[in-house]
Amino acid sequence: MRPYCYILPMIILDGRALAEKIKEDLKKTIAAYGRGLRLAIVVMGEDPSTQAFIRQKRRIAEHLGIAVSLVTPPASASTSALRKMLSDVVHDTKNTGIVIQLPLPEGINTQYVLNAVPPEKDVDMLSARSLGNFVTGKSPILPPVVGGVKALLDEYKLSYANKHIVIVGAGKLVGRPLTLFFINAGATVTVINEKTPSPEEFTRKADIIVSGAGRPGIITGDRIKEGAIVIDAGTSESEGRVVGDVDFASVSHKAEYLSPVPGGVGPLTVALLFQNLVTLAQRKKK
Amino acid sequence: MRPYCYILPMIILDGRALAEKIKEDLKKTIAAYGRGLRLAIVVMGEDPSTQAFIRQKRRIAEHLGIAVSLVTPPASASTSALRKMLSDVVHDTKNTGIVIQLPLPEGINTQYVLNAVPPEKDVDMLSARSLGNFVTGKSPILPPVVGGVKALLDEYKLSYANKHIVIVGAGKLVGRPLTLFFINAGATVTVINEKTPSPEEFTRKADIIVSGAGRPGIITGDRIKEGAIVIDAGTSESEGRVVGDVDFASVSHKAEYLSPVPGGVGPLTVALLFQNLVTLAQRKKK
Repeated sequence: MRPYCYILPMIILDGRALAEKIKEDLKKTIAAYGRGLRLAIVVMGEDPSTQAFIRQKRRIAEHLGIAVSLVTPPASASTSALRKMLSDVVHDTKNTGIVIQLPLPEGINTQYVLNAVPPEKDVDMLSARSLGNFVTGKSPILPPVVGGVKALLDEYKLSYANKHIVIVGAGKLVGRPLTLFFINAGATVTVINEKTPSPEEFTRKADIIVSGAGRPGIITGDRIKEGAIVIDAGTSESEGRVVGDVDFASVSHKAEYLSPVPGGVGPLTVALLFQNLVTLAQRKKK
Repeated sequence: MRPYCYILPMIILDGRALAEKIKEDLKKTIAAYGRGLRLAIVVMGEDPSTQAFIRQKRRIAEHLGIAVSLVTPPASASTSALRKMLSDVVHDTKNTGIVIQLPLPEGINTQYVLNAVPPEKDVDMLSARSLGNFVTGKSPILPPVVGGVKALLDEYKLSYANKHIVIVGAGKLVGRPLTLFFINAGATVTVINEKTPSPEEFTRKADIIVSGAGRPGIITGDRIKEGAIVIDAGTSESEGRVVGDVDFASVSHKAEYLSPVPGGVGPLTVALLFQNLVTLAQRKKK
């Protein structure tokens, strides 16, 4: 017999397909739910990329059978005026979930505003109370990006509890919540950031790399281990397109699995936001 | 000239001396404060090591001029009975700080009980709300062990923001809060646990090791880097004495600094608990 050798191709973790599956399941759950669901989206300012996000959320909400209520405080509103307006949004029983679109204008105390959303409506899990419940292992939902990454790893039966996971970037929306999740799951976790002297010394040892740095191309093939699982959770804009942190060409020769941008964590994060809304509404009904 | 070589001795980070200094400062602050301060300690069960802890807290409180109110629910109390009792403790305006002595008896929903303590009296920072404030960078105080380690590093002018820090053990009282703190401070942080395959590969790379595993002797000289800073935050009992995680003999030939057990983080954690009480009371007064 002659030896027959070939190179195994990298497997793409298809976040888009999984997001569709999650949304179809959700649609059935919502149809059977029997009560109205509504997502309130609080938006300040006219940022074009924000507008695109909102259009996307509206479209998906409509598809799922969830109403959307857009709340648009004047751009001049102060932190305290904003908190007061939010009080009405929070107490409106029609709103089953509330999202405060970030970033808020400069000068606004963002965390104080986010803290106005009670955990039972906090689908984004950005308030201090929601995060405290998450840290103590007592939250019924996960931050959307965490739920998305978990769903993707579970879908492809990739275990993480006994792995060494390197998180690139310690941001509030991606790096930190994922760090907390993987630590709680019992993994060995390293968090590196832009000040880490030799980041490749860490990334080359990782079984799983999750990059949320928002710096295009920083994850290259020579910075990862043969057979690594690479989750690109970074987003930046380049020539009007959304790009991730991963250099696809070089990484594709080394990684065993890649969750790409676009089509990976992004669509899952949005799907999980709506799943969170449904989970919280169901708990309240009981 | 003949070369003159010598081995620099390891420097002991003297937590006991620093704790004394903090307490003397606190004593003056409290004397000038002009209102009564009281720490309520909630204790269930008759564990002898718990009793020793309480005696220690009582003694220090007395020295500082802080009253102590011991609350002893019956050992048979259910979670909901305990929460009800705590409601009185919480609403008693004489109690400026509240500590729930851990561990609570088996069968009690510990986190739910801890969550009864509002952030403005939560000197131990174990409720979900306090932890959420800590995670979002909005807490006026730090978890005592974090405050203790920070005070010690600051006292000896040891920087940590640009360092690689390895946390040994991901427990709720030591490993996790310290991980959150160092990530927020911008450090590169690795958390390892008892399932990490080759822990020495991580600890040998660390500029600073914080060990909170509670396993005597696991930090040996061959597992650390020459010139490392070693913070022993582990506590176990051996033949009636409290012992740490560090093997002193071998580590003393490699480390540049060591915070030992006893006499390191322990006394600082207790001092910081009282400092937290004073800080919270002062904020309330305003």
